[in-house]
Amino acid sequence: MLKKWQLISEEDISPSPYFPLYKHQVKLPNGKTIPDFYISKLGDVATILAITTDYKILLVRQYKHGLGDITIELPAGRIPQGENPLVTAKRELLEETGFMAKKYLELGGVCPIPSKDGSIAYGFIALNLTNTHKQHLDITEDIEVLQLSNTEIDEFIKEGKIIGSDAIATITLARIKHPELFVN
Amino acid sequence: MLKKWQLISEEDISPSPYFPLYKHQVKLPNGKTIPDFYISKLGDVATILAITTDYKILLVRQYKHGLGDITIELPAGRIPQGENPLVTAKRELLEETGFMAKKYLELGGVCPIPSKDGSIAYGFIALNLTNTHKQHLDITEDIEVLQLSNTEIDEFIKEGKIIGSDAIATITLARIKHPELFVN
Repeated sequence: MLKKWQLISEEDISPSPYFPLYKHQVKLPNGKTIPDFYISKLGDVATILAITTDYKILLVRQYKHGLGDITIELPAGRIPQGENPLVTAKRELLEETGFMAKKYLELGGVCPIPSKDGSIAYGFIALNLTNTHKQHLDITEDIEVLQLSNTEIDEFIKEGKIIGSDAIATITLARIKHPELFVN
Repeated sequence: MLKKWQLISEEDISPSPYFPLYKHQVKLPNGKTIPDFYISKLGDVATILAITTDYKILLVRQYKHGLGDITIELPAGRIPQGENPLVTAKRELLEETGFMAKKYLELGGVCPIPSKDGSIAYGFIALNLTNTHKQHLDITEDIEVLQLSNTEIDEFIKEGKIIGSDAIATITLARIKHPELFVN
C-alpha cells in the first residue's frame, strides 16, 4: 500500500517571482524525516492545440532559454493566479499566433516534473479558427507560426524537431480523446 | 529569423545538490538585457519503456513529492554526471522493477520544461526481459510495478491516471519509431 509523504514545514526561498522555490521538511511513510527537499512551483500552464478547417495544427517556433535552443511546441502560457485556464488559453492563442477560436474542448492536464514541481499543463483543443494576422508578443518573445498536418507532426517528433514533453503529451491526449479530428 | 539569447553571466545559486539553480544575465536579440533570468538544471533522465514477451508494458506506481500525489509513469531515473544514459537505463529498470533486458533500442530525448530547464529525458525501449523478482530501492522509494497493454495505457492516459508528460511523450516517441512493438 503506497502512502504519501507528510509535509512538516514549508519555507519560501524563491529567488524571484518568476522562479517560485520552496524548502520542505517532510516525513516519509517509513518514519524517516528529510529536512530539506526542494520543489519549485513554476505555475500551471494552458496549452492549445488549434486545428484549422483543413486539419492543419498550429505550432510555434521560438527560443527557450532553459533549453538554450529554438523549439517547436504548441502555443502555451502560464496561467495567472486565480485565472480560469480557458481564459489563458484564448489569450495565449491570440497573442502567440494571431488566431482566435470559436470552439474549445477541454482535454485535462499533464505534469512535466512530478518529482520536483506539481505544476499542471492544461490542454485545450481550439476549433473554428479565424486568423486576425496580428500577434501580440511580450518583449522577451519572438515567435514564428507553423501549420503542420497530423502526419507531419509525427515526422517532426520522430526526427527530434518537436521535443517538448508537454506538447507531445498534449497532442497524444488530444488524439486519444478526439481521434476524429486527426485525419491527415 | 529567430535568434538565440546571449548568455552574459551565470551564477550558481543552488540551494542543494538536488536542486541545481542558476541566475543568468542575458542579452536578447532586440538588444534588451535581462539581469536575472533563473533556470534550474535538474539533470538528464533515462526513461525505460520495457515490453514483455506478451506485449505488456511495465509501469511504476509511486509517490512523487513535487506533485504531492501518487503517479503512474515509466521507470526512470536521473543520469549521474558523465554516465552513459544506457547504463542508467539498465540500472533503473532493475532497481525499480526487478526486470533485466537483453536488448535496448534508443529513442532519443524529450524535454519537460524548455523555458526553465534544459534537462533531457532520454528514452529507451527494453526488450527480451527477465524478471529477477528483486527491486533495489532507495530509502525514499516505494514502488509498485504494473503491466499494462498498449490499449490499457491509452485508457489510463484518457482517464488522467497517467499524467507524467515525459512518460506520455516517451510512449508516443516509441510508438512512432517502432509501431510493430505496440500491437495489443
